[in-house]
Amino acid sequence: MSDATAILLVYCPDQSGIVARLTTFIHANRGNVVHLDQHVDTDDGAFFMRVEWELADFAIPRDELRAAIAEIAEPLAMTAEVYFSDEPVRMALFVSKQNHCLYDLLARYEAGELPRVVIPLIIGNHATLAPVAERFGIPFHHVPFDKTQRASIEAAEMALLREHRIDTIILAKYMQVLSDEFCEAWPHGIINIHHSFLPAFVGARPYHQAHARGVKIIGATAHYATAQLDEGPIIEQDVMHVSHKESTADYVRRGKDLEKVVLARAVWWHIQRKVLVYRNRTVIFR
Amino acid sequence: MSDATAILLVYCPDQSGIVARLTTFIHANRGNVVHLDQHVDTDDGAFFMRVEWELADFAIPRDELRAAIAEIAEPLAMTAEVYFSDEPVRMALFVSKQNHCLYDLLARYEAGELPRVVIPLIIGNHATLAPVAERFGIPFHHVPFDKTQRASIEAAEMALLREHRIDTIILAKYMQVLSDEFCEAWPHGIINIHHSFLPAFVGARPYHQAHARGVKIIGATAHYATAQLDEGPIIEQDVMHVSHKESTADYVRRGKDLEKVVLARAVWWHIQRKVLVYRNRTVIFR
Amino acid sequence: MSDATAILLVYCPDQSGIVARLTTFIHANRGNVVHLDQHVDTDDGAFFMRVEWELADFAIPRDELRAAIAEIAEPLAMTAEVYFSDEPVRMALFVSKQNHCLYDLLARYEAGELPRVVIPLIIGNHATLAPVAERFGIPFHHVPFDKTQRASIEAAEMALLREHRIDTIILAKYMQVLSDEFCEAWPHGIINIHHSFLPAFVGARPYHQAHARGVKIIGATAHYATAQLDEGPIIEQDVMHVSHKESTADYVRRGKDLEKVVLARAVWWHIQRKVLVYRNRTVIFR
Amino acid sequence: MSDATAILLVYCPDQSGIVARLTTFIHANRGNVVHLDQHVDTDDGAFFMRVEWELADFAIPRDELRAAIAEIAEPLAMTAEVYFSDEPVRMALFVSKQNHCLYDLLARYEAGELPRVVIPLIIGNHATLAPVAERFGIPFHHVPFDKTQRASIEAAEMALLREHRIDTIILAKYMQVLSDEFCEAWPHGIINIHHSFLPAFVGARPYHQAHARGVKIIGATAHYATAQLDEGPIIEQDVMHVSHKESTADYVRRGKDLEKVVLARAVWWHIQRKVLVYRNRTVIFR
Repeated sequence: MSDATAILLVYCPDQSGIVARLTTFIHANRGNVVHLDQHVDTDDGAFFMRVEWELADFAIPRDELRAAIAEIAEPLAMTAEVYFSDEPVRMALFVSKQNHCLYDLLARYEAGELPRVVIPLIIGNHATLAPVAERFGIPFHHVPFDKTQRASIEAAEMALLREHRIDTIILAKYMQVLSDEFCEAWPHGIINIHHSFLPAFVGARPYHQAHARGVKIIGATAHYATAQLDEGPIIEQDVMHVSHKESTADYVRRGKDLEKVVLARAVWWHIQRKVLVYRNRTVIFR
Repeated sequence: MSDATAILLVYCPDQSGIVARLTTFIHANRGNVVHLDQHVDTDDGAFFMRVEWELADFAIPRDELRAAIAEIAEPLAMTAEVYFSDEPVRMALFVSKQNHCLYDLLARYEAGELPRVVIPLIIGNHATLAPVAERFGIPFHHVPFDKTQRASIEAAEMALLREHRIDTIILAKYMQVLSDEFCEAWPHGIINIHHSFLPAFVGARPYHQAHARGVKIIGATAHYATAQLDEGPIIEQDVMHVSHKESTADYVRRGKDLEKVVLARAVWWHIQRKVLVYRNRTVIFR
Repeated sequence: MSDATAILLVYCPDQSGIVARLTTFIHANRGNVVHLDQHVDTDDGAFFMRVEWELADFAIPRDELRAAIAEIAEPLAMTAEVYFSDEPVRMALFVSKQNHCLYDLLARYEAGELPRVVIPLIIGNHATLAPVAERFGIPFHHVPFDKTQRASIEAAEMALLREHRIDTIILAKYMQVLSDEFCEAWPHGIINIHHSFLPAFVGARPYHQAHARGVKIIGATAHYATAQLDEGPIIEQDVMHVSHKESTADYVRRGKDLEKVVLARAVWWHIQRKVLVYRNRTVIFR
Repeated sequence: MSDATAILLVYCPDQSGIVARLTTFIHANRGNVVHLDQHVDTDDGAFFMRVEWELADFAIPRDELRAAIAEIAEPLAMTAEVYFSDEPVRMALFVSKQNHCLYDLLARYEAGELPRVVIPLIIGNHATLAPVAERFGIPFHHVPFDKTQRASIEAAEMALLREHRIDTIILAKYMQVLSDEFCEAWPHGIINIHHSFLPAFVGARPYHQAHARGVKIIGATAHYATAQLDEGPIIEQDVMHVSHKESTADYVRRGKDLEKVVLARAVWWHIQRKVLVYRNRTVIFR
């Protein structure tokens, strides 16, 4: 017997009785709620909820669930997403030359700490990390960056990703900007790690910018990539204190520990279906 | 018209349908849920929930609500607490010689940042802070500590507290141990601040203990006082990094910033009715 | 016998033998070094040092020390500041309506935790906090802000500050921008607290900006006020994690704890003469 | 021409003129000081210093330096250690089944972020991580733990370590206790990572202990292993906040990020020769 669950993420204008409406629906169909997290944004008058229930005795077949939810959602002007806990997440990693995020993610993958994740391929704009991919038995595609061929290169990459039915792309220090078309083809499906505490130090060489400004704390930010560079919904951030004794090179070295941990946390929330995007912000149902 | 809410905190053995049962009850009586936070501790098989709903149109009168909840709770083996958001919290502060937690709490009180809190009295085992109480217009009772008279002193204090219908006691660096009888007279009603990251450095002079051990981080812990010294349910903790350049005196000075902020956060959760105690641990519905 | 110390803060182009040159000078004149912290910024090729020595047996009289240092400094192209540990710091506080930074600083002042600090006056652009000043026995000057009279108002304030021989001005949530002339009259002598993690969210309503951007961490920054708004040398920063459950009002409330603690730390480093300003950055000799 | 440096770490009873004595010695022999960090522990009356200088023009040959220092140290009752920045650090890694610290260290090693480190061998009490060692081309020795043969097993390990002239041993989640003899054979040469904020939760299953106690923060501690279990000098610690929503399994999973980062920082300070051990505490010259 399965211990799979259904996960429902919703938001809508706040109004009376939404929690009761949804939980009664689940309970009436013999679903057992195992997690419910609900929240009202009083600034925006918006209601948010994540609810997860066991499917073992649930009366509604999976392929009819989305339609059943839509029927409830429609009169409430509710936006709803439905996931099943046993569906695989098909993930591609994009890398450049730095190895820290790649090793970090692959070590978790190998240790079984990324449940349901399947990584069919790694794409690098440099060949530097091909040996790492090889050690983990994952096909590596070397796609050199070439400004003059950008459209055709991206088209080839997108074809490759679609061929492997990729739903989640991790830019694990990829260091290249994707086109608007690319970003929009995987809405809330591309996670980037930026090596600053956004919105401070957007763009290139953020550690150098931080050193020049004389900040006392450096940071890293994982966000969904959108057509606006470094402006996508923030999923996770963390920081560390620095001192005047540290050079820019120290920031780069120490910052890697932030980057890999922040990226991994964002990946974790994402694959747990705990992230809801609303008005370019995220709600993380921890 | 009132915008008061009812707050229900419950725990019970986990079982199917609890969320639906409670939310349907609220909704059927025309209560509008404004916050719901629910959680299952899979280690313990225990269910926890905090739910808050508007009373404006609620069908059940306040003085019947506890009985109505009890009827639902009984078959579920559920422990339930009910609060109303417009009930005052009657708070006494216990102090010694250090002024930082006292000023911190009174500044918040004066700024209106402790909603519904009423502070009818401050008790000090030294007279040092009497002028501070006076500036804020709060009666100060100087009750010197005397080991040989402890039982009668505490009896007098308890009578004073009862006379003022005190429900919450804040040990704002009181530095004295209360008797078991005292602690048990206000179960989950006495909040203490201990100047270490408990359970490290229980008892006296924790900063000296920390310095001697050579830790790299010091902390502070707010917890409900119980008959076991420094063993009560932890409400809030925080830490700061220290270096070998700092003496014990530096720890004492810098640690005060931790102590006052950690204590104030614990007081905040407590007066918001966001703390549920279960098996000597707390669930904080942030 | 005095236990006063001399404190020397220097920077210059890096070159061989500077430490030996200075320590030999001190030792040859019977000064006992109690703290020495030295650092080379390899990016800039700059040398920084803070050295503190006991004056008890020191051969050079105080009023000749600066000249003696200048003689050493000149051939090294060295910028040097000399302080004596027993000189008072004459401090003015500027406030508006919020009480948290004011109470925090005055509680430390009253507890003797701001050694050598003298606070002869508090200036407020609102009268709200006059009673607080009165409780601590410090003269309060209510100087309402009036855009049309700004030059004459500032002139009066500056006259008042000079009359009281103020060397350090703390903008304890003053919420007004000082003119360039004002800032330049107390170079590295005016400490402001800004309620964001600078350089993110410069200017007005930073918590609202932070909420709109959906950051996961909020911060506070203490810096020396300069003619460029929120662009002065950063002295201290700290942050706290926030969640989607928190409204802008929660940020404002919780952020106050950051603001007061960060400001107090900056004041501490400043009065300890541990801050050296170099190219719009600070070196903090912790 | 070499850019090698000499590094001197000293401590002794505090007394006048030590800094001048040492810097004059270095300067008189044409050494250029590039870093000097000095500190007096006023509680203990102890003086500490780390000084690093360029050897390019230094008059004293390397093999005579220790003797020259000893001559200065002897009358000051000074304990001194001398290192050269271009000497390799010969490091062995001890592992068990968990891969996170191993991958983390080897990724840094491969990226050139552990300067001068040579890792000739990895020892595992389980064979689980042998493939990881193989991928990085490092010999793996599977030495199963056997309580009845402990003395002979450790003797064989120690012989192996000596054969490879190992000076630094990293217990990268080794999960076994070494004998007193083993610990004492590499004084301040064995770095262990313990998955708690020591001294809280010494011994086995610290995350379970933490969950049972209901702490709000978990930690990790890197320390030099000594004959007293989990009592050695602490090198580095860090913490993360946890909530009641997290199970012990969540602590284990999330704590790994602390463990690997804290261990790596301790390794960094150690190989930079920035750690001085004094009375079971460490001075870290950051």
